[in-house]
Amino acid sequence: MKTLITNAYVLDMVGDTANIEKKEILINDNIIEIIDKEIDKNIEVDEKINAKNMLVMPGLVNTHTHLAMSIFRGYKADKKLMDWLEDAIFPVEDKLQPEDIYWNSYLSCLEMIKSGTTTCNDMYFGMNKTVEAINDTGLRAVVAWCIKDDAIKDKIEKTREFAKIYNGNKDSKIKIYVSADAPHTCNPDTIKLCVELAKELNTGLHIHLSETIDEETKIKSRYSKRSTEYLNDLNAFDVPVVLAHGIYVSDSDIEILKKIKGGISHNPISNCKLSSGICDVAKLRENGITIGLGTDGIGSTTTMDMFEEMKTAAYLQKVSTKEPSVISAYDILKMATIDGAKVLGMDDQIGTLEPGKKADMIFIKTDKIHMCPANDVCYNLVYSSNGADVESVMIDGKIIMQNRKMINLDEKQVMRQVKKIAKRLL
Amino acid sequence: MKTLITNAYVLDMVGDTANIEKKEILINDNIIEIIDKEIDKNIEVDEKINAKNMLVMPGLVNTHTHLAMSIFRGYKADKKLMDWLEDAIFPVEDKLQPEDIYWNSYLSCLEMIKSGTTTCNDMYFGMNKTVEAINDTGLRAVVAWCIKDDAIKDKIEKTREFAKIYNGNKDSKIKIYVSADAPHTCNPDTIKLCVELAKELNTGLHIHLSETIDEETKIKSRYSKRSTEYLNDLNAFDVPVVLAHGIYVSDSDIEILKKIKGGISHNPISNCKLSSGICDVAKLRENGITIGLGTDGIGSTTTMDMFEEMKTAAYLQKVSTKEPSVISAYDILKMATIDGAKVLGMDDQIGTLEPGKKADMIFIKTDKIHMCPANDVCYNLVYSSNGADVESVMIDGKIIMQNRKMINLDEKQVMRQVKKIAKRLL
Repeated sequence: MKTLITNAYVLDMVGDTANIEKKEILINDNIIEIIDKEIDKNIEVDEKINAKNMLVMPGLVNTHTHLAMSIFRGYKADKKLMDWLEDAIFPVEDKLQPEDIYWNSYLSCLEMIKSGTTTCNDMYFGMNKTVEAINDTGLRAVVAWCIKDDAIKDKIEKTREFAKIYNGNKDSKIKIYVSADAPHTCNPDTIKLCVELAKELNTGLHIHLSETIDEETKIKSRYSKRSTEYLNDLNAFDVPVVLAHGIYVSDSDIEILKKIKGGISHNPISNCKLSSGICDVAKLRENGITIGLGTDGIGSTTTMDMFEEMKTAAYLQKVSTKEPSVISAYDILKMATIDGAKVLGMDDQIGTLEPGKKADMIFIKTDKIHMCPANDVCYNLVYSSNGADVESVMIDGKIIMQNRKMINLDEKQVMRQVKKIAKRLL
Repeated sequence: MKTLITNAYVLDMVGDTANIEKKEILINDNIIEIIDKEIDKNIEVDEKINAKNMLVMPGLVNTHTHLAMSIFRGYKADKKLMDWLEDAIFPVEDKLQPEDIYWNSYLSCLEMIKSGTTTCNDMYFGMNKTVEAINDTGLRAVVAWCIKDDAIKDKIEKTREFAKIYNGNKDSKIKIYVSADAPHTCNPDTIKLCVELAKELNTGLHIHLSETIDEETKIKSRYSKRSTEYLNDLNAFDVPVVLAHGIYVSDSDIEILKKIKGGISHNPISNCKLSSGICDVAKLRENGITIGLGTDGIGSTTTMDMFEEMKTAAYLQKVSTKEPSVISAYDILKMATIDGAKVLGMDDQIGTLEPGKKADMIFIKTDKIHMCPANDVCYNLVYSSNGADVESVMIDGKIIMQNRKMINLDEKQVMRQVKKIAKRLL
């Protein structure tokens, strides 16, 4: 099936400077075939989409999520990470049923799609139900069973099963990673098993790293080394990695991180709300380390809107470095698209609009008061827009949301279900 | 004329904890007459508004703006304050015509209304045209001609004329303040003249204070004192003040500021984007100093959405103090409503929903994916919502925006005009 998009202002996110031009996009099934000022009128197409007054850009890539945590939105909040987990989250997590995981994940997926995210990278438990929700909503995702020091064998087996189904299947929108939870919750044997599993499955590792200063202190007292060294000494960086947070990394850590495949998932809102700290994104980027953006779970962040993460990432870098030119709006947009795709090892498939890539794109309505005038379109996207400006979303060549209405999905039903779960458990 | 609002979840912002209940609101012309669970059915009303699925709260109060700066959205940005003003802004400001001021201000007003702001506090030049735009859009505002060391007499005369028209007029939505620009741009004689004028007109003073460390350095080298001391020694705090920014205030400054009438306008996004610094809101509040929120001009902030300011204010306090409980969502909402009203000396009229106050309120649609579940409504308002969730806006008893459509105002025309101005000048 061929789809032609006309009259779009295309921000392709290719290259080091913004490239915005009125173009047409021809899509063959789920793949972008041609992007050009004018596409041969003789090509027969099955569907035409008129994108007048729309800016079309790659779908956003959310590099660190816990989709099933949506019921925790604003629940017993305003606490530091470990206090919050122990007081509010762990006691309830034990009671989550598979159906709860499904609906909670479903709600997070919808919130992401409605704010322009087309790919996410999730780690949690009960992932079979989360994958169901991802598939039912139409999102693209990297998915991992979160492994800690308990029930390791079961999680490893589940990861193997998942990988068998999804990895290597060219048409699958799901890709399976291995996940070790974090250096301070995984002993050396657990980390080693996870790394071996990632090698066996020819995939990557998703892990929290240096989210709080307390974690660094714990690792130091246990192993007399830093978290990054701990992982490095266990050969964790032999495989591609997604390192969530990366706030307390030293200069010597940076020397190690320079060589990793994958990158760091920066979660600025979660880091603020839990008072975790500010990741030195500018310094990491200067050292050639790839940084993507992530929301973390709704519990800590209270929003899945990547436009909010973009703004907050920019604000924090500008105010913490005291240098307003430290990061450009275009670089922030890169972090939310192509650099996020690189962090997930998917930059050959997504993150830019180019022939040969998957047709994952978002349509942003720009003829709005709060985006006028458009002296700098990238600036407006980062600082003036938010998820509500995303008018339509295409994933894998299919329109999933059109004029802010989800196609074939019942938003009210999801809200009813999640409210019921929250009422039962919280 | 009597208007009855039914089925609303009312967050009245009265008191120290959130009070949310299903209530009815009876409005007599522009004044709230009754708020109660059920209002006597025998009272004859002219209009009924069904606020089903809506949260109704006081309109937001934006305590520091430069409305006419909207054409500078994203223009030559990513610079520090003085570099940005000198390179990008001052050369263009000289060319702004009265009609430009009108349309630029008009756009800022619309952006505020569409994101839930019902009152603002503006200082700039060409204020006669800004007041026209404020009146034409229906906003409530405090307005001041910005006085620097040049053309003082003219600005003083204009302020007197304005005060004669608007102050003391019970039905006017405009209130006139005196504005001295800032300690570093106003010599002692200018400050003294402004303070005397405020006394003469029985009104307050709007002034920038300690926005950057450079300003403090300048004042120190000129007068061997801090900016706050400089103003205090010139008796500026004899009159009510709105102090914009207040980032570099010392403990001794705080002792002075404890006694002011009015308060500080905290502008977190502008302060981040210009790398100015982080205002220690928590400490100032602990010392009993009233803090409101402000957007500053679109030029530096790139948005007039007070929901974004609320989020950013919270993020910055949590991450800079390393204490997530440092400020509650309800306190952030207070800063955006009743505390903002106190900063402007208008808390007898606006800032809460109570009988006797002006009928300035916003209707927020809450049955949305990104606000589900509502474990904590205030939390959702601060961290999950944004201006696009404001469905309808009432100012002075009149619906100005309904279902996101401006009543009787042509948004497209405003955008056309501002685009033309930007094209001509930038």
